[in-house]
Amino acid sequence: MAFGWIDEQARARRRAGLVRTLRPRAADSPLLDLASNDYLGLARHPETTGAAAEAARVWGGGSTGSRLVTGTTELHGDLERELAEFCGFESALVFSSGYAANLAAVTALAPHGSLIVSDAGNHASLIDGCRLARGTTQVVAHSDPQATRKALDTHRGPAVAVSDTVFSVDGDAAPLPELASVCREFDAGLIVDDAHGLGVLGAGGRGAAHAAGLAGAPDVVVTVTLSKSLGSQGGAVLGPARVIDHLVNAARTFIFDTGLAPAAAGAALAALRLLGREPERAQRARAVAATLYARLTAEGHEAVRPDAAVVSVRAPSRELALRWAADCRSAGLAVGCFRPPSVPDGISRLRLTARADLTDEQVERAVRVIGETRP
Amino acid sequence: MAFGWIDEQARARRRAGLVRTLRPRAADSPLLDLASNDYLGLARHPETTGAAAEAARVWGGGSTGSRLVTGTTELHGDLERELAEFCGFESALVFSSGYAANLAAVTALAPHGSLIVSDAGNHASLIDGCRLARGTTQVVAHSDPQATRKALDTHRGPAVAVSDTVFSVDGDAAPLPELASVCREFDAGLIVDDAHGLGVLGAGGRGAAHAAGLAGAPDVVVTVTLSKSLGSQGGAVLGPARVIDHLVNAARTFIFDTGLAPAAAGAALAALRLLGREPERAQRARAVAATLYARLTAEGHEAVRPDAAVVSVRAPSRELALRWAADCRSAGLAVGCFRPPSVPDGISRLRLTARADLTDEQVERAVRVIGETRP
Repeated sequence: MAFGWIDEQARARRRAGLVRTLRPRAADSPLLDLASNDYLGLARHPETTGAAAEAARVWGGGSTGSRLVTGTTELHGDLERELAEFCGFESALVFSSGYAANLAAVTALAPHGSLIVSDAGNHASLIDGCRLARGTTQVVAHSDPQATRKALDTHRGPAVAVSDTVFSVDGDAAPLPELASVCREFDAGLIVDDAHGLGVLGAGGRGAAHAAGLAGAPDVVVTVTLSKSLGSQGGAVLGPARVIDHLVNAARTFIFDTGLAPAAAGAALAALRLLGREPERAQRARAVAATLYARLTAEGHEAVRPDAAVVSVRAPSRELALRWAADCRSAGLAVGCFRPPSVPDGISRLRLTARADLTDEQVERAVRVIGETRP
Repeated sequence: MAFGWIDEQARARRRAGLVRTLRPRAADSPLLDLASNDYLGLARHPETTGAAAEAARVWGGGSTGSRLVTGTTELHGDLERELAEFCGFESALVFSSGYAANLAAVTALAPHGSLIVSDAGNHASLIDGCRLARGTTQVVAHSDPQATRKALDTHRGPAVAVSDTVFSVDGDAAPLPELASVCREFDAGLIVDDAHGLGVLGAGGRGAAHAAGLAGAPDVVVTVTLSKSLGSQGGAVLGPARVIDHLVNAARTFIFDTGLAPAAAGAALAALRLLGREPERAQRARAVAATLYARLTAEGHEAVRPDAAVVSVRAPSRELALRWAADCRSAGLAVGCFRPPSVPDGISRLRLTARADLTDEQVERAVRVIGETRP
């Protein structure tokens, strides 16, 4: 029977307690949200949603085609110009998702014969980019510039190092200055995914590359998502104009995908402008994360010191992680639960996200619930 | 210098006249649009745009997380239920793009040791799905079920055949009943991308699989896009509930991507309901395509008889195709221009899309402009 083998996999998942199911949420969910990636609390800000609504009305429900045919509106152009300027890069190119942006950057910049040095903790979309690229990938130890150095040293020809700036699972930051310096030793490019850095790190939320003094560098390419701090959907690649021109001509997930919907472009642009006017939101997200970490560790939880707005709390096992997250939910708190096979190291954890719009009282409530439900 | 090799590629593109650039369009562009994939003219329909605006207001500018964490709203659930029901399938799963849906379907359903038989004319996203999948891919001649038969006959173990239902470049349809019959001979699954069939083919636009009597079959999986006939953004996989459950648990572009923005889900759902109420839109799109083809061939153009709403007109060369499309634009008509390296056979063509809301007068004007600008 066609697809018969999936039933055995389903049984194995059930036996291991690893079945994932979708749980649609209501618009007026009473849960306290420490699970979303809405770091700045802008997804439901009236300026964001108003701009989405207005863009849909003016431009339509969709962009109607590939960016190269009918899918580029003046709104896309505005978003790309302002995003590049905000983050300190020459050019930007917007995609329908951060996933698509990462596939584009890695595949288009790692041709046949090139080397890709990829951090062992990288996001699935960077890993898939490596697998799709014509270059050869070498996976190196997590956040270890010397391992990257050693890998680059073995290769002659074009090379890139690829890394998250803030790793999604534990919220730890990559050693960007050291990575960039190693890359420069070998004339290698550096591609970093700032999904969890944009809006949170750097001056006024300009991101991890900006904070590391790498914004606008000729050898650095940054990918971002519009779906986290900017409260919308989509992704973008930021870099030198010649690199962006190259992507327009060579990146398959750009050429063969429908352009981002106008509503999403409008929402992201409004959120970006709001962040420009209210730069303190970035700092507040970091402060909330620091407080969460301090309060949780003071109460004896094992957590990773947050470099951005993600706070990772270790759970004793995957079963107990699941039960812990479920008990938090029953007590009115939504938290993420990361567990195998979505975590590279097999360690299950609660994943909390610090939003800039959480009040001190809400933070205290979250800490209390996490403590009371501890397995 | 990092990324130095891209400059040589850029020079080669310039020499060959193959440089692609983005041309942002205005909201009130006066061009007659035969280039977009807005087949039913719903992208700017007030019900579609109104629903997008309302969804953004109610649910926010973005879905705020992975579908497995916070990214599934009740709106996503409604869209999935109604889409599956409309197309005649047990279940549906919505993605942020058709590209992501194709990557998901192919990679999750072609495990290590399996065979993927892929049509030589398949869309880039299916090809990338094959390249990412752990199974082995065999590319077979375009629309040739006997070639698929021969490939499947060489293999023992899980196998899938993968095909567009309507091929994007020439608008020709795949021989679905024959393909399905060959797959069944070998207990192989069939995955078809109905991006250009949904809304155009089948009763009331229920798509090519429905038209072929394959809707709801246990061994058939269909991917669709929400960004063409449904005037929005996103994609979906339709199939048996057990296959959809498998994707929820195994498809990386589902698990590790932010959920589709509420505005896009709302727009697609509104367009779907509108199509349900106005099924004649599907027939009108096909009729417009047939008229375009008849009028163009009567005037001596070489075109491919359209099986859906795409009409492909051959150009003498890529330079003349580019000039022809540019001259059409100067005369007020937007047409697609497909040329190397985006076409598998190296043949350049104008690509026209028939929209259900084109008037007979607009069709005549398009034919006249194409004739007057013929190189």
